Amino acid sequence: MTIGLQLLSNIKKDGHLEMSLVEVEVPSPGKGEVIVKMEASPINPSDMWPMFGPADLTSAKLEFSDDRKVLTAPVHESMIGMMKSRFDQSLPIGNEGAGVVVETGEGADALMGKTVGLSSGTSYSQYCCVPAMVCLPLHEGTTAKEGASSFVNPLTALGMVETMKLEGHRALIHTAAASNLGKMLNKICIADGVDLVNIVRKQEQVDILKDLGAKYIVDSSSDSYHRDLVAAIQATGATLAFEAIGGGQLASDILGAMERVLSKDAVGLNTYGSETLKQVYIYGGLDVSPTILNRSYGMVWGVGGWLLPHFLKRIGYEKAGALQKRVADEIKTTFASSFTRELTFKEAMTPEIIEMYVAKKTGEKYLINPNAES
Amino acid sequence: MTIGLQLLSNIKKDGHLEMSLVEVEVPSPGKGEVIVKMEASPINPSDMWPMFGPADLTSAKLEFSDDRKVLTAPVHESMIGMMKSRFDQSLPIGNEGAGVVVETGEGADALMGKTVGLSSGTSYSQYCCVPAMVCLPLHEGTTAKEGASSFVNPLTALGMVETMKLEGHRALIHTAAASNLGKMLNKICIADGVDLVNIVRKQEQVDILKDLGAKYIVDSSSDSYHRDLVAAIQATGATLAFEAIGGGQLASDILGAMERVLSKDAVGLNTYGSETLKQVYIYGGLDVSPTILNRSYGMVWGVGGWLLPHFLKRIGYEKAGALQKRVADEIKTTFASSFTRELTFKEAMTPEIIEMYVAKKTGEKYLINPNAES
Repeated sequence: MTIGLQLLSNIKKDGHLEMSLVEVEVPSPGKGEVIVKMEASPINPSDMWPMFGPADLTSAKLEFSDDRKVLTAPVHESMIGMMKSRFDQSLPIGNEGAGVVVETGEGADALMGKTVGLSSGTSYSQYCCVPAMVCLPLHEGTTAKEGASSFVNPLTALGMVETMKLEGHRALIHTAAASNLGKMLNKICIADGVDLVNIVRKQEQVDILKDLGAKYIVDSSSDSYHRDLVAAIQATGATLAFEAIGGGQLASDILGAMERVLSKDAVGLNTYGSETLKQVYIYGGLDVSPTILNRSYGMVWGVGGWLLPHFLKRIGYEKAGALQKRVADEIKTTFASSFTRELTFKEAMTPEIIEMYVAKKTGEKYLINPNAES
Repeated sequence: MTIGLQLLSNIKKDGHLEMSLVEVEVPSPGKGEVIVKMEASPINPSDMWPMFGPADLTSAKLEFSDDRKVLTAPVHESMIGMMKSRFDQSLPIGNEGAGVVVETGEGADALMGKTVGLSSGTSYSQYCCVPAMVCLPLHEGTTAKEGASSFVNPLTALGMVETMKLEGHRALIHTAAASNLGKMLNKICIADGVDLVNIVRKQEQVDILKDLGAKYIVDSSSDSYHRDLVAAIQATGATLAFEAIGGGQLASDILGAMERVLSKDAVGLNTYGSETLKQVYIYGGLDVSPTILNRSYGMVWGVGGWLLPHFLKRIGYEKAGALQKRVADEIKTTFASSFTRELTFKEAMTPEIIEMYVAKKTGEKYLINPNAES
């Protein structure tokens, strides 16, 4: 019987977080299942909430001995109610990762020994037991580290372009556009001939995207921000935006700029603004403050959440498979991720290091190698 | 040649509103057109913006002589830019009304002498020339005053229920629910067996709706508001709301209460909340301040504008006709409107009276009789 280490997160009803590294028994793979020995599990922004919830990490303490490997941190009373569904449960974490198939169940032999990416929600674990179906076999010569981010960012970026097509828009706007995801989206849009307006927050991010060949870049810290945004929308005809920040007026600014372009030549009352749907999907929450909508863009607008699993369900199995194939084919180019640091489990639990990856500094991207020596 | 009086609104580039009562030539009706002599044209909330835009009505002045019948009011410099599409154009106003067909063009003889409702955008006029197709023939015994509000409120209320069905929801929430529209919606929902949660702002509105037979009424001024809203959503399963206020946290409160019900029995991470779409359509703007969304309801939510003409286009001509037929059939019951005051053109232009109908006091509903002596 194989024993593996796994990182689990537990938010206790009494008001604290316990993230623990525990020994778990690796099951025998059932029919159609495989065991993947994990080598590279990225720490994505989308892993933060499952890992830590609203815990106050500035007060986190790590105990790491032979007997007990536990990070604890308090959760403020006013926030604890939101966590009700997960009280007092030690839950697996880690949205995605990659490793090598070391054991296969009936009907899954073809994957034996292969390096695969997977999206399991359990990737912060030395061994993952998953259906072969959720594995993306990487091409010969692709390493686990190269294939570690085969799901969340690549499929989200592809999903934005597919959503644009499905909902009848002809160009895209993306915010926080110099992120890893934003870079992928630029490469996809350049390759596919889709106009993309990139909104970033500083000059250094403008430069990053220019180097990638981005054509439309708007710097929200610039004095000419609103004017630049209107000009980029005018040039591209973008009526759909994907918004990663969430808080503040960004979504509203974008809708306002779209409407300014759409109503530019309007004559007469134009009481309800243009008839063209202006849509912003909020897919992240880098700023957790409220979204402020000033509604100065007529009546034909929408703001809503966008979620990768829902998108995949919407397009169906076959189409999702085609997108995944593209990810495997272009994992070293379009979908290349770079990691600034590889962590052991112990490092990933260390408050000083947690502070670094929670801070989401531009360009910082960490991964855990679950099988590296702690 | 017939001459009729018509109320026109002009916002001048130089920063003021001019609403004028002018003599216009009534055209001969073309093929399929009719001339309606208007007797009752309601002043709806949706008429305010076309009439006055953002003019400062507290400084309005009326000049009403034989030569010149003009209301003027300043528009603040910071608002004038929004009015660009309508600068220096004398535009017809008045969304709907009713009157008697006094002349018919080729192929429209059947309407001669009939009392009809119409939705033309030109109803503040003694004579309207409109396609017969946009007229709703009222039943024998229905007066113009009874049929004056056959379009905006009735079709909006019916449109809410139809939208609910089209988008797969099973119950409705409505805000500012004691309005004329809100009362109609209650009557429709009771007749059709649709559960409706009414959100109102004071006890006196609770009483009005109780008298109508409303089952679910939530008073947002009550200490138990949030709890009551959750309980009503729990009881009805409502996942769709129509929001008339627009500004503030009401839309967000509703989404939060929906999610609380939907995630009540969730176990585990529940990172993105329930998978059921929670939707709020904002169809009015009684509060013009920003909409504040705290996004504490997972990722499967939407907020957007809802507009009657778009809804009618969506359902198509035949279905829209069926809804209109119901309005004509039930104009004295389900869709009965009561008016607190009937105005002449001159009265409708008088600053003291404008102040009354712009204030939107509960229960106040005015109409203009364009053919009453001024």
